[in-house]
Amino acid sequence: MRITTPTLLLDKEKAKNNIRRMAAKAIRNSVRLRPHFKTHQSAQVGEWFREAGVEAITVSSVRMARYFANHGWKDIMIAFPVNVLEMDSINELAAQVKLHLVAVNQDTIEVLADQLQHPVHLSLKIDTGYRRTGILATNYAELDKILQRVQVLGEKLHFEGFVVHDGHTYKQSDVYAIQTINNTSVYQLHQLRERYKAKFPNLQLSIGDTPSCSIIETLSGVDEIRPGNYVFYDLTQQRIGSCSFDEIAVCMACPVVAIHPERGEIILYGGSVHFSKDVLLQEDGTAVYGRVVDFTSNGWSAPLEGIQVVSLSQEHGVVKASPEQLKKYKIGDLMGILPVHSCLTSNLMQGYMTTEGEHLEHLSGLPKRELVS
Amino acid sequence: MRITTPTLLLDKEKAKNNIRRMAAKAIRNSVRLRPHFKTHQSAQVGEWFREAGVEAITVSSVRMARYFANHGWKDIMIAFPVNVLEMDSINELAAQVKLHLVAVNQDTIEVLADQLQHPVHLSLKIDTGYRRTGILATNYAELDKILQRVQVLGEKLHFEGFVVHDGHTYKQSDVYAIQTINNTSVYQLHQLRERYKAKFPNLQLSIGDTPSCSIIETLSGVDEIRPGNYVFYDLTQQRIGSCSFDEIAVCMACPVVAIHPERGEIILYGGSVHFSKDVLLQEDGTAVYGRVVDFTSNGWSAPLEGIQVVSLSQEHGVVKASPEQLKKYKIGDLMGILPVHSCLTSNLMQGYMTTEGEHLEHLSGLPKRELVS
Repeated sequence: MRITTPTLLLDKEKAKNNIRRMAAKAIRNSVRLRPHFKTHQSAQVGEWFREAGVEAITVSSVRMARYFANHGWKDIMIAFPVNVLEMDSINELAAQVKLHLVAVNQDTIEVLADQLQHPVHLSLKIDTGYRRTGILATNYAELDKILQRVQVLGEKLHFEGFVVHDGHTYKQSDVYAIQTINNTSVYQLHQLRERYKAKFPNLQLSIGDTPSCSIIETLSGVDEIRPGNYVFYDLTQQRIGSCSFDEIAVCMACPVVAIHPERGEIILYGGSVHFSKDVLLQEDGTAVYGRVVDFTSNGWSAPLEGIQVVSLSQEHGVVKASPEQLKKYKIGDLMGILPVHSCLTSNLMQGYMTTEGEHLEHLSGLPKRELVS
Repeated sequence: MRITTPTLLLDKEKAKNNIRRMAAKAIRNSVRLRPHFKTHQSAQVGEWFREAGVEAITVSSVRMARYFANHGWKDIMIAFPVNVLEMDSINELAAQVKLHLVAVNQDTIEVLADQLQHPVHLSLKIDTGYRRTGILATNYAELDKILQRVQVLGEKLHFEGFVVHDGHTYKQSDVYAIQTINNTSVYQLHQLRERYKAKFPNLQLSIGDTPSCSIIETLSGVDEIRPGNYVFYDLTQQRIGSCSFDEIAVCMACPVVAIHPERGEIILYGGSVHFSKDVLLQEDGTAVYGRVVDFTSNGWSAPLEGIQVVSLSQEHGVVKASPEQLKKYKIGDLMGILPVHSCLTSNLMQGYMTTEGEHLEHLSGLPKRELVS
């Protein structure tokens, strides 16, 4: 298979190992694993999770839910505040699969009460510190009011429990900071369980971030984990401490189109329309948009020293290289680049080529029309 | 037409006015307009340029060239350093259209000499200050060597002239700074014309950035301009001074999914997979990822004060709003957002809905297989 344009390579064995490792951890900790599929968004990659015993999944949009439902997934949580404009599609999905919705306020509950045609499972999203969205864990007034209403609507809305996404772990690079965030969430979730367990004896507690799920060995105190990025990992997760470089399962292959020895720079065909613009700031304040690796007979090496992607425009990537690194490359070579954020890179690349040369699809590469119900 | 998910709206009249204004300016200045089509990447939008008299276009990839060639464009410049790995496709295109390639070094010229099967037009990319790629305008040793070689290869490579992309104008917000950058480029291009006009009496000078082409009234001293972003403009171009808010021809419509009055925030369904992550830094150091507008009977208003998009994650957009603005919105409303960078937003959205409800395609929304030659 000849690569001629920017291509996202996927090391199947690394991804499968990542999938198996998290599945084993979930079993060891007696928690249900409901992996988030927004990172890969690929029916074929989804099958590798099935092989590892996964039955329940998380997605972030109705379209993504429909896609995986069409590929045989029967237990799907849309972990995004319900978009009430999509009630028609939600109703179709609810007729088809065990659908879990996530609400963050009473207005949404009322729309669901009014417009749902089939029963769904409902979780409330709790904000335990990230402050993006969710009901504050200490906002009992709001929670009491909503849960009173939900109890009445039990026919249509099976209350499942509380979900948290600790996105602020992504800003940490210290295992103790991540453990502290997780402890805080679990503590607050337990307070909630105490308060509402009389009404809802089976209420479930679910957490979602890849750093906590990767780094913390003993995931006690919750019933479910929903990590997603761990299938591929990336430079951001390596920096946080969630993975080693060796566990990053995706790598861009980008053609070298220009070399500027006078300033130690190499220009790649590969820019923000391929990688996205997520950046990793270094301690010295410089920005890294990707780390360079060597291709090997069956994959790629660890990141090289003295060479990295330092800026991206729409189609150009600028690589800064030491004289020793620079002299290795010529026009027409392919350079391997580990991405900063594998979710966004996969979304832009719209598909994968495995290191064995197989093409795997990504939802973003499928015509939108095919999916319109 | 009912909008239920993040949708990129296109005001056809604004875009057509932007297209006509630049076409009129080119005629007034007696320069050839070869607009860059990477901003819209849409066959239908391309037709509006044709109506305004445009015959020659610029693109940034072989795939984009092939797409527009399939839609009847006969004179296409790929304004990106030749990717020598795509010689097969380049040869097919060269058989089909008047193809212009851009080179930045002699290695590429040698590959072209060796592998081209049909004549092409060749320009050298000159670096007059941006320092991304291109041959330094004062590097006569390199230029002499390359042009000597190109002269010999005249059968296959019709030397066309010099192209510049002054990307550093994007960092300015002062008409004099932009004029100075343009003067510097034109001066350096004229030095080159003087040096090589004996050998190449018809050599052409071409510049490309939207800020210079939008802001400078008298585009003297060059033969061709290649702006692209001006078809839609965006918040970045408004900040630079290239356009007014009123000339921005695209606007995102995003569902409101959560409201947090306690901290004055609204959560949108609309994140970095819809907008991209380009950011506009304010004077006070805060980041803006989009400005909010009201929808009107036939389009949208000027940006509102006291409300803006302040952060983006994969699917979430966080809007900060004053109490007066906040109270206008409820769950399930659509919010209008002017994008920071229309090229990247269009690429991610994979298509447009005109304010009249018509769907227009974007190359990124087409299956890649269809385009494989």
